[in-house]
Amino acid sequence: MNKNILKWTNTHIFTQREAPADAEIPSHQLMMRSGFMKKLAPGIYTYSSLGLRAIRKFEKIIREELHKAGGIEILMPMVQPKELWMETNRWNEMGAGLLKFKNRNDHEFCLGATHEEAVVDFVRHDLKSYRDLPKNIYQIQTKYRDEIRPRFGLMRGREFIMKDAYTFDIDQAAALKSYDDMYKAYQRIFDRLGLQYRIVQADAGNIGGSQTHEFQLLAEAGEDALLVSDTTQFAANIEVCPAIDFETPAVSAEAAKPLEKFSTPNQKTIADLEKFTSIPAHQLVKTLFFSANDGMNVKDKELKPIVVLLRGSDEVNPIKLKNLLGLANPPMMLTDEEVKATTGASPGSCGPVGLKIPIYADNGIMHLKNYIVGANEDSFHLKNVNHDRDYKITKIADIRMAKEGDKCPESSGRLKAFRGIEVGHVFYLGKKYSEKMNGQFLDKNGKAQHYEMGCYGIGVTRTVQAAIEQSHDADGIIWPKPISPFHVHICHLDPKDAAATEYVNQVAMALAEKNIEVFIDDRDERPGVKFKDADLLGFPVRIVVGKKGFEADQIEVVARKNKEIFKLNKNQVIEKAQSLL
Amino acid sequence: MNKNILKWTNTHIFTQREAPADAEIPSHQLMMRSGFMKKLAPGIYTYSSLGLRAIRKFEKIIREELHKAGGIEILMPMVQPKELWMETNRWNEMGAGLLKFKNRNDHEFCLGATHEEAVVDFVRHDLKSYRDLPKNIYQIQTKYRDEIRPRFGLMRGREFIMKDAYTFDIDQAAALKSYDDMYKAYQRIFDRLGLQYRIVQADAGNIGGSQTHEFQLLAEAGEDALLVSDTTQFAANIEVCPAIDFETPAVSAEAAKPLEKFSTPNQKTIADLEKFTSIPAHQLVKTLFFSANDGMNVKDKELKPIVVLLRGSDEVNPIKLKNLLGLANPPMMLTDEEVKATTGASPGSCGPVGLKIPIYADNGIMHLKNYIVGANEDSFHLKNVNHDRDYKITKIADIRMAKEGDKCPESSGRLKAFRGIEVGHVFYLGKKYSEKMNGQFLDKNGKAQHYEMGCYGIGVTRTVQAAIEQSHDADGIIWPKPISPFHVHICHLDPKDAAATEYVNQVAMALAEKNIEVFIDDRDERPGVKFKDADLLGFPVRIVVGKKGFEADQIEVVARKNKEIFKLNKNQVIEKAQSLL
Repeated sequence: MNKNILKWTNTHIFTQREAPADAEIPSHQLMMRSGFMKKLAPGIYTYSSLGLRAIRKFEKIIREELHKAGGIEILMPMVQPKELWMETNRWNEMGAGLLKFKNRNDHEFCLGATHEEAVVDFVRHDLKSYRDLPKNIYQIQTKYRDEIRPRFGLMRGREFIMKDAYTFDIDQAAALKSYDDMYKAYQRIFDRLGLQYRIVQADAGNIGGSQTHEFQLLAEAGEDALLVSDTTQFAANIEVCPAIDFETPAVSAEAAKPLEKFSTPNQKTIADLEKFTSIPAHQLVKTLFFSANDGMNVKDKELKPIVVLLRGSDEVNPIKLKNLLGLANPPMMLTDEEVKATTGASPGSCGPVGLKIPIYADNGIMHLKNYIVGANEDSFHLKNVNHDRDYKITKIADIRMAKEGDKCPESSGRLKAFRGIEVGHVFYLGKKYSEKMNGQFLDKNGKAQHYEMGCYGIGVTRTVQAAIEQSHDADGIIWPKPISPFHVHICHLDPKDAAATEYVNQVAMALAEKNIEVFIDDRDERPGVKFKDADLLGFPVRIVVGKKGFEADQIEVVARKNKEIFKLNKNQVIEKAQSLL
Repeated sequence: MNKNILKWTNTHIFTQREAPADAEIPSHQLMMRSGFMKKLAPGIYTYSSLGLRAIRKFEKIIREELHKAGGIEILMPMVQPKELWMETNRWNEMGAGLLKFKNRNDHEFCLGATHEEAVVDFVRHDLKSYRDLPKNIYQIQTKYRDEIRPRFGLMRGREFIMKDAYTFDIDQAAALKSYDDMYKAYQRIFDRLGLQYRIVQADAGNIGGSQTHEFQLLAEAGEDALLVSDTTQFAANIEVCPAIDFETPAVSAEAAKPLEKFSTPNQKTIADLEKFTSIPAHQLVKTLFFSANDGMNVKDKELKPIVVLLRGSDEVNPIKLKNLLGLANPPMMLTDEEVKATTGASPGSCGPVGLKIPIYADNGIMHLKNYIVGANEDSFHLKNVNHDRDYKITKIADIRMAKEGDKCPESSGRLKAFRGIEVGHVFYLGKKYSEKMNGQFLDKNGKAQHYEMGCYGIGVTRTVQAAIEQSHDADGIIWPKPISPFHVHICHLDPKDAAATEYVNQVAMALAEKNIEVFIDDRDERPGVKFKDADLLGFPVRIVVGKKGFEADQIEVVARKNKEIFKLNKNQVIEKAQSLL
């Protein structure tokens, strides 16, 4: 059989009418219903032959574009020794998502969730001279991240396929050139998918590094909130988007009034207070408490309470706070008990006045005067509070979430909100890993230098799911052609009819010779079942061949995307299928 | 750059003069020296771009041949939940080689070392009818086995790539047909490698199943001992090879003499006794002690001592003993203390007379009479011992190792010994897994039946190493063309010379267009270094282009295999390279 032709009865595909209960978003539901994959355990899936075909096609696109960027493919291990991760201290910093275990000899290992340490170890004994640089090394590999609550199928799964690349350069200028080359390779990769995506500024997380961009496929169900300028190319993940009021509020001209305590029984939230005082939330100040150490490991450390002040209408941005405090992971909020121990009052009655701990104020409160905050005494607030006079701010910063309608940081435009699925990420790392792991080369002057690095990820299985999330309708998947498991789906309605079967095989062979991949539904099923399954599987072009139509010389060709139907003579079918692809 | 051409300076390959100390066999040494792979931890390697090319080529051969056999490719998870392995009880039976761990939610998982459970789970909800069968499902995947002492590189590594296939059939006849189809596919796969291999009868281990063959690449350093008939197609792993004396020894005509105890101070071994008594080892009887329960878990169980009797010249075969006792793993020998507790004497002075435990006798002792065994009293033996009269044998069986020179079980020929590396294994499983995991379908009569299964493994990374083990010389690897990372190695001696470089590029392009893969050594290195590295990397054809030779119209083409050198005009080079491939 030609490798571009597959008959349903020669494969193992079983579609389902209903998605399992744990499939919450359309792409996850459709992947389960179409038999694209099957769950073995939470967040752990077997890819069927159809699923694997889509994945392999995307991998091929990645390989082709990385090859153009000078990428060298290798394959690193999934099981990695603790000693390696201790060199960078990420054994401790990565948190519980890094799955650790002891082998039978009582040595500690982890399952690779990322491979910075492994790749530096791979090159560090060989990259001895500036003549050995630059290098751009990548792999496509199964990774494991011990998600506490896996959900959304491959979107937040535990075992997944990733492409990770690493560049090594002699200096920062060369490293930023490598970054740019990879950025462009990523653009080519996602352009080839033909899907809607945005490149946004992002946070580096615990990978480290300063310059970083995320490639986000747009989709309603995306986990990431993006803000995109309506005027310039500016786009950012909400995690790092500067928050700038569209109209700069004027500093209040009011004179400072005397501080006054007043009774606020049962007024615990900003909404309560808004009603109780008739002052709008954006003129109230809310007081939050965090512990200024790495949230992942806070249990092991002493409590370092800090105050964060924001307008009542704003939300704190934990990533901005993490970066402000110089932490590896966002800090944890204090529990009610911890707040009480720190302030003497419950969280709803707390404020900055009189506290002896660091106070971080969002710049959004700087124009306010004579405002209300908690009195650090249950059921009491203070009014006519003024910073500087009544309490000292340790640091003023942008700590709040930006939101739709805020000002574009680069122009006088406004920000627009999108939801995205992060499918790619590029990082400029600098010397973080080469310094910690002693990755050195001799420069032109014979002086030992640490190389500059970048790292670059693409979630392979995640992208394939994200493509479905962006491209589907009520009846099933609408595969983008470049990663569609097959291009043409022939519904062969009368597989026992010799003449119709011969025609089906002729059409399939003619298409296959043009490198068009053909899936033939030759099952012994009713036409309705076959049509429903063709919609569900979602290959771009459907050809319907029945005994009746065959004898009447009328064959249906259907475009999956818009369901447009073409009734054609037998000899027009191939040309139409080609033109629709 | 054409995808069939790679320049050394565009890749990341660093050869080494010396192999690391832990590389004991030539293939392991050569893979480390050629930069084929790098060790991350014991038994855990990163594959470089060259290593990966060889691996991918072998994978492609496997895919093509399995496709012909109707194989459906899927990809199953490496991380698998305990519950699945409890269904077959292999969670307990697999021993410590199955790496187990708890995730952050305290659920137990293992790293897949084999996928019978996972594949049955994949199909069991879908294979409902006899019309859904047969199925032949495979994957190529990274596996992990927690080897206690990893050695020989990829041969006995921890993390490795394997192809595992599974067939599902309606009855035994169909299952044996599937077995045969896979057997033939394996023959095609290993035939395509062009290497010496043997297909041998083998033991099923703890996979289960009755019919099984191993595909063994022949190599001195192979871990498996094979016995091959000099007359018929018979070939077996020594583990299961029937042991038949070439000349059947006649039963001794001697009359039974009276049993007699005699002093044997310091006579502990058969060799001691042979000297002391002047009776040849093959007329002495040795007594060994085992515990008749699964050796992997013997610590958890009570001791069940048994005796094994063999001729002094024979060795016990633990696999035959395992199968005789119906165990999952070979039984453990008793320690000296356990022997003493059982018999009252040290191992060197023990014998079957007077013991109240089961006695298993190898059929090789049945013709002996009036023989010597230990007296179960330190420094004493018994002479004139006769079975039946002096002790009762529980069971007579073939428990000894066969050896070179033994009789072929199928003819009057003799067995010849080979060493092999097990690279493939086919098993007929029957209903072992479908019964335990409730894998059922409705047959033509609407009756629920368990399907018949087979499973089929190929060690992908192991085969690539085994190929090197079989095909190398003192200077390096001699790649079999089908899996050679590149076909032609151009030693470009003067990469700064424009005319020579242009010629190198022309030759490379001309070869690349014929789908011949070309590696160009364009490094700034001395010719001697380049020649040594070309021998080490071992691609089939080497072309040497230097400025001098280029100007004199004399180019060297060298066959790696036999180092034959052809001095040719520039325009003869392409044709010669092609003809050598």
